[in-house]
Formats: sequence, C-alpha cells, structure tokens
Amino acid sequence: MKRNDVYCTIITIGDELLIGQTIDTNSAWIAQTLNPLGIQIKRRVAIGDCKADIEYALDEELKLSDIIIITGGLGPTADDITKPLLCAYFGGKLIMNELVKAHVQHFFAKRNRPMLESNTNQAMVPDVCEVLFNDVGTAPGMLFRKNDKLIFSLPGVPFEMKHITTKHLLPIIQSHFVTNNFIHRTIVTAGEGESFVANRLIDFEKNLPHNIKLAYLPKLGILKLRLTGIDIDENELDRKFNDLQELLADIMVAAEDIELEKQIGIILKNKGESIAIAESCTGGLISSMITSISGSSAYFKGGVIAYQNETKLELLGVNTKTLQTYSAVSKEVAIEMANQCLQKMNTTYALSITGYLEQGECDNEVWIGLASATQTLTFKISPPYNRQKNAVLASNTALNLLRKFILK
Amino acid sequence: MKRNDVYCTIITIGDELLIGQTIDTNSAWIAQTLNPLGIQIKRRVAIGDCKADIEYALDEELKLSDIIIITGGLGPTADDITKPLLCAYFGGKLIMNELVKAHVQHFFAKRNRPMLESNTNQAMVPDVCEVLFNDVGTAPGMLFRKNDKLIFSLPGVPFEMKHITTKHLLPIIQSHFVTNNFIHRTIVTAGEGESFVANRLIDFEKNLPHNIKLAYLPKLGILKLRLTGIDIDENELDRKFNDLQELLADIMVAAEDIELEKQIGIILKNKGESIAIAESCTGGLISSMITSISGSSAYFKGGVIAYQNETKLELLGVNTKTLQTYSAVSKEVAIEMANQCLQKMNTTYALSITGYLEQGECDNEVWIGLASATQTLTFKISPPYNRQKNAVLASNTALNLLRKFILK
Repeated sequence: MKRNDVYCTIITIGDELLIGQTIDTNSAWIAQTLNPLGIQIKRRVAIGDCKADIEYALDEELKLSDIIIITGGLGPTADDITKPLLCAYFGGKLIMNELVKAHVQHFFAKRNRPMLESNTNQAMVPDVCEVLFNDVGTAPGMLFRKNDKLIFSLPGVPFEMKHITTKHLLPIIQSHFVTNNFIHRTIVTAGEGESFVANRLIDFEKNLPHNIKLAYLPKLGILKLRLTGIDIDENELDRKFNDLQELLADIMVAAEDIELEKQIGIILKNKGESIAIAESCTGGLISSMITSISGSSAYFKGGVIAYQNETKLELLGVNTKTLQTYSAVSKEVAIEMANQCLQKMNTTYALSITGYLEQGECDNEVWIGLASATQTLTFKISPPYNRQKNAVLASNTALNLLRKFILK
Repeated sequence: MKRNDVYCTIITIGDELLIGQTIDTNSAWIAQTLNPLGIQIKRRVAIGDCKADIEYALDEELKLSDIIIITGGLGPTADDITKPLLCAYFGGKLIMNELVKAHVQHFFAKRNRPMLESNTNQAMVPDVCEVLFNDVGTAPGMLFRKNDKLIFSLPGVPFEMKHITTKHLLPIIQSHFVTNNFIHRTIVTAGEGESFVANRLIDFEKNLPHNIKLAYLPKLGILKLRLTGIDIDENELDRKFNDLQELLADIMVAAEDIELEKQIGIILKNKGESIAIAESCTGGLISSMITSISGSSAYFKGGVIAYQNETKLELLGVNTKTLQTYSAVSKEVAIEMANQCLQKMNTTYALSITGYLEQGECDNEVWIGLASATQTLTFKISPPYNRQKNAVLASNTALNLLRKFILK
C-alpha cells in the first residue's frame, strides 16, 4: 500500500557535535538523498556519546518515525559505544563476522599497516542485525528491524556513510516502503529582498494547489525559491514553475539550484569570453568565489587586488589626478579601475570594486565598475551590515551585475 | 545554588534544514559560546515549519533541558510560523512593540527602501515574552520563562543570532543560573597534525588534574588546544597552560584564541612592515583572509591574482623562459612570483603560491614562495582533500610560513 507519510529521523551521535567542534554535513546529504524517494525527514537529533541519551533518543524517535538512521559512534576508539548499545537494545549478542574480518585484515594488509585489536573488534557484529558491507572502510553498517520499522546504523566518515547509503540503504528502503513522489524545482534570483519578492508572489502563492509548496531560501544578495510537488504530475509542477520564472524573469539568475559564480562560468564558457577583476575593498573575495569553481581557469585570467592607493596607481595604472580629485571610493576611480584592468589583462570583460565596508568616519559606500570594449557602467551600493557580511553582499551584488552585463 | 548540570537543547526550525538544502552552522557556534559558561548542550533537534512538530519538540525538550534555544522561523514571509505559535504556546497574544516598530522603520528609511506590511508585522511580539532587541536586523529575539526554565527564540540569520546571543542571551543565562566556574585557555598551533601533537602531549595529559580538561580543535592546517579548568584556581590553570606553551613552543602561533591572519597583522603593524601577495591556485583566498581583518590596509598593499600563465608573465613579470622550462607549478616560478611581487609592490615581504588543488592528470602539488630584500624561501605541500578544502589548507599553510618568515 502506498503511503503519504513515511517518516525518517536522523540521529547523529558524538560529543564533538554537541560542543560545536564538528559541523554535521552528513544529515544534509542523507536528507537530499532520501527526499526524492518520498521519504520525509521528520526530525534530526544530535546527541552525545552517552548510553542513556542514545537509548532515550531511540525510544522516542521509534514512536515518531518509520526509519531511523544513526550515524557516527562506530569507530575503533574507546568513546564509541554505539555498536554494543544497539546490540543490547535489540536483544542480541556480538559475534565475529568472518567476511567482515577478512575484509578488515585485507584492508590493513593492502596499506602495509599493523592491525590493532581494536580493529579486529570492528568485525564483531550483533547477531540480530543484517550487516551492510562497507567496501571503502572498516566499520560495517547495520540494519535492525522492529515492528515494520527499519533502524540503520552507519559510520560517521562521510564517504563511508555515502557508500553504504547508496549501495545498501536506498534499495532496502525502496523495497520496504511504497511512497509518495516528491519533486523539487528551484529558481535562483538576485538583487531583490525576500519580503519584496514575497509581495510579488502573493497571488501566485494563494493559487497554488495544496500539494505544491513554495519555500524562500535567502542568502546575502541571493534569494532561492523552491517549489515542491507532492504526488503530483510533473507537468503540473512545471507549469507552476514556468509561471514562477515568468513572474521573476527580471531578477532570475537560473532556473536550477546553482551558485551565481558557477552560472557566470557557464555563460562565459559558452560564449568563449573571459573576465578579469580589480578588487579594492573586497580584497580578493570575488576572485576567490570565481576560482572556487572547478575549470574557472578557462575564463578567469586573474586580477589585481589594489588595496592601497599606491597599488591602484602603480600596478593598475589608475591616474593620480583621478585619485586626488575624486578619492579612492568614487565612481571615477571605479571606472578607471575597470578600464585599466580590461586593457592590462586583455579580457572580454573587467569588473572593479572600491569602497568602505565598515561604518567609521565614512558611511558604507561601495562603487562597482564594469567594462567591455564598448561600454562602461558603474553602480553604487550601501551595504548595511558588518565588515564580513558587507563583503559577501557586495561580492554577490557585483557578480550579479557582472552576469547581467555579460548577458546584455 | 550552584549547579553542575545545566542542560540546554538547541531547536532549529526550517524545512530547508530537513531537506538538506541548508547546513546548520548556528548550533555549533551556540554550543561553543555556551560551553565556557558551564552550560552543557544535551541535544540538538532540527524540525520543519510544522505547528504540531514544533509544539511536540517544545513539550519534549522542556522535560529534558533547563534552557531551550530556538533558531529560525522568524522571517517576514508566510512560511515562518514560529512567533504566533510560541505566543499561543505560552498563552499570550501578539501586540505591537513601538520600540521595535520605530527600529524597523528606521532600518528601512536609512536604506531608502519602502516598508511592507510584512515588515511592520515583525514589530508584533507576544505580550508574554521579554523582547531581545535586534540592533542589526528587523526580527527581534524573544525570551519566555516557564517553571524556572528559559526559552529563547532567535532569528536564523547567523550574524543577527550571534548579536542577540552575545548582547542579551549570555547575560540573562549568567544571571539566572549559577554554574560551575569554567575558565578556558586556548593556544593556537599550526603545521602539525592532531595525532602528532596528541603524541607529544601523552605525559602532559596523563598528569592533568581531574578538573582540567584538554580539548583538540582542529581546522585545516590549524590546531587549537583548549584547557578548561572547572572550579579551579586561575593560577593553577595558568601553570598548566605555561607548561603546554613550552611543550608546543615550536608550533605555537599564539597563546590566545586568535586567527592566524589576525596574528600576522599584529606582528606586521608592530614592526611597521608591509606585505603583498601573488596568488595563482588559491585565486584570491589568501588575500581575502588577510583583508577580512579590520585595519589590514595599514600593512597589506595588495597583490596579483595570476590565475593564467599570461597574467604571470604580463602583470607579474615572470620570465617566459622560467615558465616554459619548469612549468607554472614549480619551485622556480614560485620564487619568481614572490620576487617580482616584492619589487612591483615595494613591500617588506611578498608571498606567492602556485599549484594544483584537484586530483586530475597531475597530483595535488602546491609551491609556496616567500621573499624579502635579503632572502627567498620555497616550500612544497601536497594537500590531500578536495578542491575547496585544499584551497583552505594551502592558504593556512602559506600564512603560517609567512608568519615564521616575518618573525625570523
């Protein structure tokens, strides 16, 4: 029977999560992987390496969810208590699994590393579980079944967890539950705040059927919107998604979940064009965003970080008179920075930025310049936050203006 | 009465957390911030924008913890249901807070942006809460009290959450609970891995009294060690802290919790010296780290991002023959990049970096160059992770080598 409501809880175990030493990225990956199967992540719970807390969490989450996925706590060190605890919780005893033992031995032999007793112990598994074989590490995953519910225990090391999930967990879940179909569509916009976009979409939201949900996902200067269709015909969702794209056409970056800097890379690559950047106030942040994309050397030639006036003059060739007459943070200097960068770097486009990011003697004021062989444009913004946030907001704004400049 | 066991649950609200679109970094920051006050994070629970689930989580966590911190769900859009829900949960009604309203109006007026009704609604607050004023955003924080327990609701935007936590939440918690006295001392090291440092500290750890704990806080290329004294005489902790500093003197960056790039700034400022940077593979990341520090224009002149060979030749003046003979990723090019940067920028020191950050045809290999008027040095590293992590590891390693070069 098809179910609308197969719920899953992700339990992450480890003191390092609770004292803030580690940021949990496993849960997000698991959620993204289960979501297309129609499995709803009901709750995510992080707890410490403490027997009572783990048992309590199991008791509670088994009341709420059909699937429990536990990550972490399976390593060879003394503070990892999950395996014996799960064994006792489900009423079994630990036995040596010869297949896992041979695998662990092979794993160490291949790397010419001595094997400790703690490593051999990784092959001890509860006799009440199904072993989920770990080809890429030494800690096996485990599956326990109780009252039609599935309880998985996976290692915390991300690539081991991902391997076992893909190879074992997904097929097991798909053969056990017949679920709703969830489809997502994401649009990325830039240049308009959340509340203004929401205001434009009042009627659109009002007319959405009950099985399509709209979510707002804002970052500094960027706003993503996500439509989720639950058990819906894909064409019906796409019609609404097309409406959304039309309503937001003027601020749309992409009709898929993609970073602004990646989208710029795609456009430049397709056109066979290139870009160089002259940064003052952002001090390299825009360039580092552009170069965070694999393959960016195909279109990003490089740039100048002209943090002091001297650098603007000497390395970039901005005119001394322009600097003296208008000051470093001015429309005129932004124009000269962009034009000089374009000439020196011999690219299709150049982007410049100069400004104050901190409130002090001057108000926050940032000038952005754009140059091509035929056109020069400038924009002024006044980012309202602290130094770090203003740098990100100014960088995202500059990248979005660059994107529009390239597309024109 | 002094308590050893003040427990806190962090509840994060938002569908985007459950479908894996957003990774929660707020919880880690909150944990790190509350920990020194002797507050133990008992559980972290993530749930969706669903009334029943939020109420259930509140019911359950109030049984387990003394402090509940809720983040997220306070934005101006329709899917943010937390505020009215909390208002009803604690038996109050929403009223207009004139102070918050004036602040929101001022916030928009200053930015020359029109105000929507949804923005005005942000000034509606439950009459049963204490408003935690938000100087840096429009959504106020809230504090509810119930049976000697504290329930905080904070906006999910990280810098707003941090502001309200520091300004309001910490003093309120400190005046409400008398906890053990926790004193922390942190040392920052760089250049040696966690297990190697742990190996050097076996005897030191063995001889620590029961009320001093040692924690390892590793980041890419950086390792912080924190001593925590629980109800201890400050001098006793400082004696152990001095021992730790002596044991790790060769790899110590600072005997306080400070960023590497900030420490470099302090040293350069004190010496009245300056630095310029020529980056290839890191694409601006090192410069953006240096310029993330307020006041860095006093010692950072700027730099060149020589992402393509052409830029290394033309803008930086690296010799064509050197590039052809040794290739862009070589000791020789790193030396020339550093020396050319030093001359062109006329600084006391120059740092250069060129390499491969991704495994592909070539192995990861990164060359770091350092130059002053009297000396040139190079170092080679082989960062083992993915592109993003390797960029951070290479940048931290380069900055640490620069620090040692300056101090020599």
